[in-house]
Amino acid sequence: MSREAELPALWSHDPHVHLRFRPGDKVADIETSATRGFGGSKADAPVLQAERSVRLGELQEMLYANSRAGDTRSVLLILQGMDTAGKGGIVKHVVGAANPQGVKYTSFGKPTEEELAHHYLWRIRKALPEPGHIGVFDRSHYEDVLIVRVHDLVAPDVWGARYDEINAFERELVDSGVTLVKVAMFVSLQEQKRRLAERLERPDKYWKYNPADIDERLLWPKYEQAYQAVLDRTSTDYAPWYVVPCDRKWYSRLAITELLIEALKGLNMSWPPPNFDVDAEKARLAEA
Amino acid sequence: MSREAELPALWSHDPHVHLRFRPGDKVADIETSATRGFGGSKADAPVLQAERSVRLGELQEMLYANSRAGDTRSVLLILQGMDTAGKGGIVKHVVGAANPQGVKYTSFGKPTEEELAHHYLWRIRKALPEPGHIGVFDRSHYEDVLIVRVHDLVAPDVWGARYDEINAFERELVDSGVTLVKVAMFVSLQEQKRRLAERLERPDKYWKYNPADIDERLLWPKYEQAYQAVLDRTSTDYAPWYVVPCDRKWYSRLAITELLIEALKGLNMSWPPPNFDVDAEKARLAEA
Repeated sequence: MSREAELPALWSHDPHVHLRFRPGDKVADIETSATRGFGGSKADAPVLQAERSVRLGELQEMLYANSRAGDTRSVLLILQGMDTAGKGGIVKHVVGAANPQGVKYTSFGKPTEEELAHHYLWRIRKALPEPGHIGVFDRSHYEDVLIVRVHDLVAPDVWGARYDEINAFERELVDSGVTLVKVAMFVSLQEQKRRLAERLERPDKYWKYNPADIDERLLWPKYEQAYQAVLDRTSTDYAPWYVVPCDRKWYSRLAITELLIEALKGLNMSWPPPNFDVDAEKARLAEA
Repeated sequence: MSREAELPALWSHDPHVHLRFRPGDKVADIETSATRGFGGSKADAPVLQAERSVRLGELQEMLYANSRAGDTRSVLLILQGMDTAGKGGIVKHVVGAANPQGVKYTSFGKPTEEELAHHYLWRIRKALPEPGHIGVFDRSHYEDVLIVRVHDLVAPDVWGARYDEINAFERELVDSGVTLVKVAMFVSLQEQKRRLAERLERPDKYWKYNPADIDERLLWPKYEQAYQAVLDRTSTDYAPWYVVPCDRKWYSRLAITELLIEALKGLNMSWPPPNFDVDAEKARLAEA
């Protein structure tokens, strides 16, 4: 198991390698309370998260800077997970460390009538990040083989054809310079219950509660099947899935931060060279 | 000079009142190195900025939560200023404290051909924040009476008609529930020179340098006139301008954070009530 040179020592295993879905992995076997590959504890998290957020911010700025010099690459973080898995917390605490200037966040809820009148990838394509940006999908086209499959919203042969179609779509994205970071977030049913209960206890959390969450919860066995199919059929060499245990929020945030850092480092960037004569500009400025 | 009850004691004067443009104020007289209304020093800034960023984040979440319950209001921060005034730093350090989920950032550069084929407010309207969001304009429709005026890009009667048109447009925005926070950021020519020189010294800053910045710098007397006209003609009761001295970055960030907090508090929000029966849901959850 390789360890990236810059990876903090508290990581005994590189999450980029260790959390990657491998053929044969079963959703039913995921230890959602695990802190896989991390040798530290919750007490180590605040300082480490702060340090790595700074690093993430630096790399994001470099991505943005390069786009100004003509680099068309971008990064797209795709977050999937059941209610309460912590997608919102990742957006707030991990993506929140990046400069809003270079972030494009999109939440995909129930499709609008206009969206339903189009191919399911239509709204996805419209939300892709521009060059130099980090796109964030809070849910994504995978809903079209998750909630759609579980609730029989289209016929089985229709959703059944989508896995290959999604793979082809993502191949196209990767070929056009988008680095995909696909994260499947899992919490236990017990932890989910605790988090839903918390939303019912606190008036500042009511707005996050939706009675339909319980209906979805009861459908977990069907979702488990649907997630298994997503992982089995759409985790590719060019766009692998990462499976992140999310019972411990501090762990999932640290892990996803590292996944983003690794994706950005994989672009092998440096600061773009000046497109002007530095000494001549210094002379001009001195006179100005 | 009123002090808002929650305003930290280090503020001797409420920036919401104290930095507001008043008829007769002259751009030429702005003390760009001042820390107007702030009784503390740079050493106080980090802790205070962190505390107030948390507060800003809470209010933003409440704005977002209310939009989910049908409230259509939003906030729009408009940042205007010469190069190096620190607009980017405000986006990174002040807006960056908010949850990306509820932020819509737009930078308005040189108009594209498509944009030029439309009315100058066309691209502005497209970028307005959705309900519950904080929109951020990095430059704005004011460029159409600033750079456009300074460089004679359209005839004087064309730009001359825009002040009233902008006031009417902003009246419409305010009536539709958008709270405008218009911030004019000013640095001294000396401080600007220092910041431009820094960009020429550091390879990680080259990308921020544009030789045209010096050309604009030399046009400062014309820009000063154009900014004066903007403040004189478009600072209205419903959408006033705030004039922020920006030689000290820590001060401008603290001040603009307070302007945003005050705007959000002005919406008199509370957490939205549940749209479900809390006890019934608790019972359902216990069984689920």
